[in-house]
Parts: sequence; C-alpha cells; structure tokens
Amino acid sequence: MKYTQPDWDDTIVALATPPGIGAIGVLRLSGPRAIAIVDGLFPSKSLAAQASHTAQVGLIREGGRQIDEVVVTLFKGPRSYTGEDVVEVSGHGSPYVLQELLAAFLRAGARLARPGEFTQRAFLHGRIDLTQAEAVADMIASNSAASQKNALNNIRGGFSAELKQLRDQLISFSALIELELDFSQEDVEFADRSQLYHLVNAAIINTSRLVESFRLGNVIRNGVSVAIVGKPNAGKSTLLNRLLNEERAIVSEIAGTTRDTIEEVLNVDGILFRFIDTAGIREHTTDAIESIGVERSQEKMRTADLVLYLFDANTMPPPELAALKKTFDEAGYRYLLVGNQIDKGEEAAMRDRYAAATPLILISARNNLHIEVLRERLVDMVLQGQVDANESIVTNARHYQALRQILTALQDIKQALGARIPGDLLALDIRRALHFLGEITGEVSNEDMLDYIFSKFCIGK
Amino acid sequence: MKYTQPDWDDTIVALATPPGIGAIGVLRLSGPRAIAIVDGLFPSKSLAAQASHTAQVGLIREGGRQIDEVVVTLFKGPRSYTGEDVVEVSGHGSPYVLQELLAAFLRAGARLARPGEFTQRAFLHGRIDLTQAEAVADMIASNSAASQKNALNNIRGGFSAELKQLRDQLISFSALIELELDFSQEDVEFADRSQLYHLVNAAIINTSRLVESFRLGNVIRNGVSVAIVGKPNAGKSTLLNRLLNEERAIVSEIAGTTRDTIEEVLNVDGILFRFIDTAGIREHTTDAIESIGVERSQEKMRTADLVLYLFDANTMPPPELAALKKTFDEAGYRYLLVGNQIDKGEEAAMRDRYAAATPLILISARNNLHIEVLRERLVDMVLQGQVDANESIVTNARHYQALRQILTALQDIKQALGARIPGDLLALDIRRALHFLGEITGEVSNEDMLDYIFSKFCIGK
Repeated sequence: MKYTQPDWDDTIVALATPPGIGAIGVLRLSGPRAIAIVDGLFPSKSLAAQASHTAQVGLIREGGRQIDEVVVTLFKGPRSYTGEDVVEVSGHGSPYVLQELLAAFLRAGARLARPGEFTQRAFLHGRIDLTQAEAVADMIASNSAASQKNALNNIRGGFSAELKQLRDQLISFSALIELELDFSQEDVEFADRSQLYHLVNAAIINTSRLVESFRLGNVIRNGVSVAIVGKPNAGKSTLLNRLLNEERAIVSEIAGTTRDTIEEVLNVDGILFRFIDTAGIREHTTDAIESIGVERSQEKMRTADLVLYLFDANTMPPPELAALKKTFDEAGYRYLLVGNQIDKGEEAAMRDRYAAATPLILISARNNLHIEVLRERLVDMVLQGQVDANESIVTNARHYQALRQILTALQDIKQALGARIPGDLLALDIRRALHFLGEITGEVSNEDMLDYIFSKFCIGK
Repeated sequence: MKYTQPDWDDTIVALATPPGIGAIGVLRLSGPRAIAIVDGLFPSKSLAAQASHTAQVGLIREGGRQIDEVVVTLFKGPRSYTGEDVVEVSGHGSPYVLQELLAAFLRAGARLARPGEFTQRAFLHGRIDLTQAEAVADMIASNSAASQKNALNNIRGGFSAELKQLRDQLISFSALIELELDFSQEDVEFADRSQLYHLVNAAIINTSRLVESFRLGNVIRNGVSVAIVGKPNAGKSTLLNRLLNEERAIVSEIAGTTRDTIEEVLNVDGILFRFIDTAGIREHTTDAIESIGVERSQEKMRTADLVLYLFDANTMPPPELAALKKTFDEAGYRYLLVGNQIDKGEEAAMRDRYAAATPLILISARNNLHIEVLRERLVDMVLQGQVDANESIVTNARHYQALRQILTALQDIKQALGARIPGDLLALDIRRALHFLGEITGEVSNEDMLDYIFSKFCIGK
C-alpha cells in the first residue's frame, strides 16, 4: 500500500535553522508554487527565469513594505532535496525578521510545514527510501563520531544497499521456487534445493549480522550508560573528574553545548559514555554506612550498560573482591574491576594479589596512571570486535524488529528446506520476509507508520 | 587614518546560524583561501571551476572520513558580502556535525572569525560604510516593525545618503571659502556670503532633524518603557492583561520567543512598549498602605519613558487628581491619566468631573472600552508627529554624539558668518564638521573605535 498525502500539492514553508539570534537564518519552501511565491515578493529579478542551483541577492518586499535583504537559492525539482521545486531564503538572523518573512510567505500562499515534511516529501517522491529518511533525523541528532558516521552512511544509502542485497537473494530464491511451482504437476523438483539452501543460508548470515549490530547500534545512537560504584573513599569522584577533565579541553567552540551535559558525558573514540547518577558519585556523605559499597548502588548498576567497580588496591581484601565479582556475575552485569591508588603501593604486588579478579585494571586517578588504558578498555567493552568499518549498523528499533521477523522467516525457510516441504509453502515464507524488508525501506508502508516516523523530526527538515 | 588589520589576508570561518539543533546549519568562510579550503575537502567536483552564486551538493570528507553531505554556495569576490571570496556550507543541523565541519575547516587553514569580522571586512573593503555595518547588527537585533524598517533602510544606505547630502553641502561651502582664501591678498569677498548663509542654514536644518530623531530612534531601538501606577484597586493588572491579551493572539509561530518576554512587551503599530516592573503590577498585596498610590512607584516612574496613572473614575476626588498632576509635572514625567471603570458610571459626567486633568483618557479595562484609543495615545506620545516615512532616524548613540558635534560646528559657522569672520577661520569649523561626519561613516576611524563597534556583533556576521 502506497501512502499518499491529501495536501500533496501544497507548497510548504518552515524555518530550517535553529530558533534564536544568529548572523543568518534560513527559511525553506518546497512545492509546485515555491518559486512563484518567493518570486512575487522578490522584485529585483525574475526567479523563474534563473537556473537551478543559483543564488540571487535582493529584497523581499510585501506590498510597499521592505522586509529584508536576502539571498535566495533555487533548487528546481527533481534536482532538489524533496524532488519538488525548493527555494531557500537566507535572511538576517533576527527572530522578528524571520517571522515576518515566514508570515509573508504564508500570506502569499505557502502552508507551514509539518515536522519532517520536507524529508517525507523526498520519500514520497522516491528521492530516498525510508531508511535514508530516518537517517536524516539521526544525523541531526548525532552527537558523536560513531553516530554521525552511521547516520551519514545510511543517508547515502549504505543500509539500503545491504537490504537490497538481501532482497535480491530472497527474490532469486523466490524465482527458483516459482519455477518449481510451475512444474509442480510434473512432480519434479526443478529448483536445485542445495542452491536454495545456499541462498537462504547467506541471507540468514547477513540478517543475523544486522540484527546483532543493533546492540552496538543502540549504543551508537544513545550512548553507553556507565555506573561508577565503590566504597566512599575509593576515589569515584576523582576518577570521574580525571576522565572528564581531558574531555573539557576539547569542548565545543560552538555554543549551545551545555556545561551540564558535558559534565556527565565522555566521548572516547567517537562513543558517548554517559555516567548515570553522576550527582550521586559527587556526594560523599551518604555512602558512609555502606560496608561493601554496592548495596545502595544496585539500582544504578541494573540500569547501566557497564559497571565500573572502583576499589582501593592497597586495602581491598581479595576475598571481598572475589565475593563481589561473584555477585556481579550472578546479576549478569557487564563490569570492570578498577583498582585505584596504585601510586601508594607496589603495582606488581597488587597485580599478584588480585590476579583472580577479572576483568581487572589498576590505575591511579590522582596521578593519571593507566587512565588511557581504562578508556581503551571502556571502548573495547562496547565494541567487542563487532566493528567493521564498511558494514552497516542497525540503530533503529523499527528496523531491528523487522529484521528479527525476517530472520525468523528465513530460519523457517531453512527448516522447511531441510524437511523437504513443498515449494508453495516456502513461497509464503519468502513473501513474509520480503514484506518485512519492504517495511524497513518504506516500499510497504501505511499512513500511521509514516506519520509516526516523521512526527519525530524537527520542523523545517 | 585608515584602519588596517594585521591578519587581513587570513581566511575566516564561523557558524552563521544560531547554535542548537535545527534542520540545517550554515558555516561561512571568507578570505583569499575560502574556496581552496572547502575545495580540498569536497571531492565530488572542483569548486574553483564553478561560477559565482552557484550551489553544489556533495560530501565534505577529511582524509578518509566523511563528515557530512552539504550544499556549498559560492560567492566570488568582489560580488560577495565581504567583498572577498565567500563560501557558505549548509550542513545537517546537528551541533556535533557542525562542530566537526568547523574543526575540519580550521585544520585546513581557516581561522575562527572574531565577532562581526565578516561585516568588518565588508567595511574594510569599501563594500559598505560604517553606518551600514552598524545597521546589520541593528537588523539582527530588530524585534519590531519600526526597528526592522529603520535597520533595513540603513543597511541599504538610506542614512548614508542623507549624510552624503550633508557632506556635499559642507564641501560646496568649503569650496566657496577656499576660493575666497585664494584671493584673500586682494581683500575681496569672492564667495557670496548670502549663498554661504543659505548653505549652512540648510545643513543646520538637516542636522537638527537627525539629532532630534534620536529620541524616537532610541525608542525604536530599545522600545518604550511604560510604568502603570495607581492605587491597589485601580485595575492595573486588568489593564495590563487587556493590553497584552490581544498581543498573545499573534504570538510568533517561530519558537524561541519566550513567554516571559511576551508577558511584559506590547507591540503597537511596530513600536515596542515594555512594561517595567510588571511583576509589581501583578502583586496586589503590598500596595495596601499607600494613600495616593504613587509613593512607592516613584522610582519606577523616574526610570520609565512613559507613565500611565490609572485611577477609578467613579471614586477619585478631582482635587487629588489635580495634586497628582502637579507632582508629575514638577517631576517632568511624560504621563497619561487613565480613568478606569467607566462602565460603572456615566462617562459624560466623569469627563466633566475630570475636565481639568489633562492628558486624560477614560476607559474600562474590564469591558474593553476605549482600549484601542489608549493604544493610539501611547503611540502618539512616542511619535509626537516626528515620523516621515522617508526620512532616516538616528538610532545609534555614536551617530547622535557626532551629529551633535556637527550641529555645534554648523552653528558656530552660522554665527561667524553673521559676524563677518574671515574665511580661514570658517574653514576650520567646516573641517571640524566634516571630521565628525567622517567618523559616522567610517571615513575617519581608528582601531579602538572599530574594535569596539564590531565587538558588539555576533560571531558569524
């Protein structure tokens, strides 16, 4: 079912740049009347007569009133973001002036765009598939090298290409099965079942990899939550400060990155680590009654992706650490035991003493010893050898759910092949897999799903 | 003295759009290497080979890393904002992505622009004079039709044109005087002194008008502060709500206009009225001990441009109102006496009763009677017949100070002409006037002054 919009022929307009005061602000129009609407307010020259991908400088004037001196850039359809005629109007970055420009375009017949409507139109015009549209929102929300890289790869159709490969495999499979069905009265097994088996196996491998990439994809998209726990004097806040201090040196030159966020977020090798309940770490008072330093942290550890258990490597009794490790293992935590304050003793002796405690790392937060190693270990714990620079990573829960359905269908097919089930039943499973594949790319879609997807976009994109 | 910058040949870069998340964000580069720097990171085609005022779509790639898919718009000097080569790079509106793009351009040899440096370069290259440069900042800060109109007029050289006219008058005058000086040994008065008198008079009229426009200009730039004062039950908060409620209906569709601001600001006919200490108006409790309702408001009234004294037109004794009016007159306030709650009595009788109290207006805030008249009166109090749509209004204190100096010089000249002072002394005064005129337009400037002016700009403009 192809989704069509009731007001498809409207020309839409929205502020494309963030609200607030800046040097410039950009309004974007898209639709059949985009050029005509701006043209009517742009007396200095005829925009319709200008070539696509050119910029014109002039006044926007409504009746006798001059609103702003702007740069108008034309992108004539289909060579545009939406596939329709697109006009970008870049004015002075005063919210008042931009609002006046917007109001003038609305009065001239444009309609305020809904969230994501520019991208939605690009999808509806077949400029991009749904995974690319969703990647645009991911790109705008990206806040680390990993999320940016993955979103850009998806915008450029990297994920679509992998899905297309999967689709081609399924269609080849389907073609062979159909052939067999055509000759079914003759009771021949025309399709080479070993070839079918090979095809379905390849599709299962591809799909499994994508399904499994979602754990990393989720990390890339949302960051990794880390709980630093330990006894009161273990040095939790010193360690956090040590980790964060290095980060502060590379704080954004672009304003708008708030201090609050930076204080709890660490970016290592493009992966965002979020220290949960950091405020708690910075409080020294309430932990005093704890014996082992973890009871009150259970909730924190349960919600965290990773747990750093920090202890004083000079005083921690090895049996206590062993008991703790057992607790963590039983709870299913992903953890790292971090012995601190190695500057106060013999590192080799400590290493011997805690040899049974793995995974272990010995550091001195105060003296900045092995902090770099800790950072690498954090990254390793996230990636776990999962990264191949050229493979797509699934970051989207919707894609993940559909891929799991595809995987189930493929496994059903494989089983059916093994049981020598007839081709017409196999064909059903194939169609099921293709259906879910189409849902990911938007070939199979419905209004509610599209509305939901695009409603999460910002206006102007 | 012409100001030259030490790092004039640098290529500068800055984020031109407001910080924060949006559909797109624009980085701007200007300088001799602007095109080369972006070209080096833009593999899909040669930017240098493209025509000016064209937009190219492609990837920004640094080494092996793809950063973003962008639109690059070229403005080759001198046909650009700065007069230099300018490149605008429009990327996805993620602060992270924009920062990565910025960092890549910095690594490729650009330097982060200082506040206002793009506009400063436009000035230094003679693209605009100083009044136009300052108007760019005014445009970005504009928040009403009046301030937008005036800033745009000045950007487009409206004020410069008036100054040029004044300058031409002074130079004509000067030429006549110089001619006289050339023949001074012969003791002839070559210059027709009545013609000189006529010229200086015309210049005085022009300059006076500009000097006087500053009061209005200041209002246009900063808004008009209004204090609503009165006894506790006079209806101050009802009136404020009544005035503001109409405003709320036309609240910006563009986010970022905060509710807080709107609650205290009223835009009538493009003029912003700011209600000072509005919180105080909304408090009903603390005023109870006041007898006349103004003692505690003295400070408020002193700092306000306008005072609205609100009273109950059913109960206020005329002698008390007369005493109040006397106090206001003595204090030099600009005020309006506002009789409220006329719905509770006979309006004609009230008008008779308070006939001696001027300026007076009778309203009912609750029943929305004559509120429109009150709004008009507010505007009239500000404009006082000062507005001619085609004349420039001085909004800048620096211009105002210089114009006052010019006016003094012109008046000195006029007096000297009357006293038949010799031409060589007149020439000194002319030069003084021309000097201050040059200070306004930037023909006469110094580094400190320029640094001060441009430091008030935002980065990226």
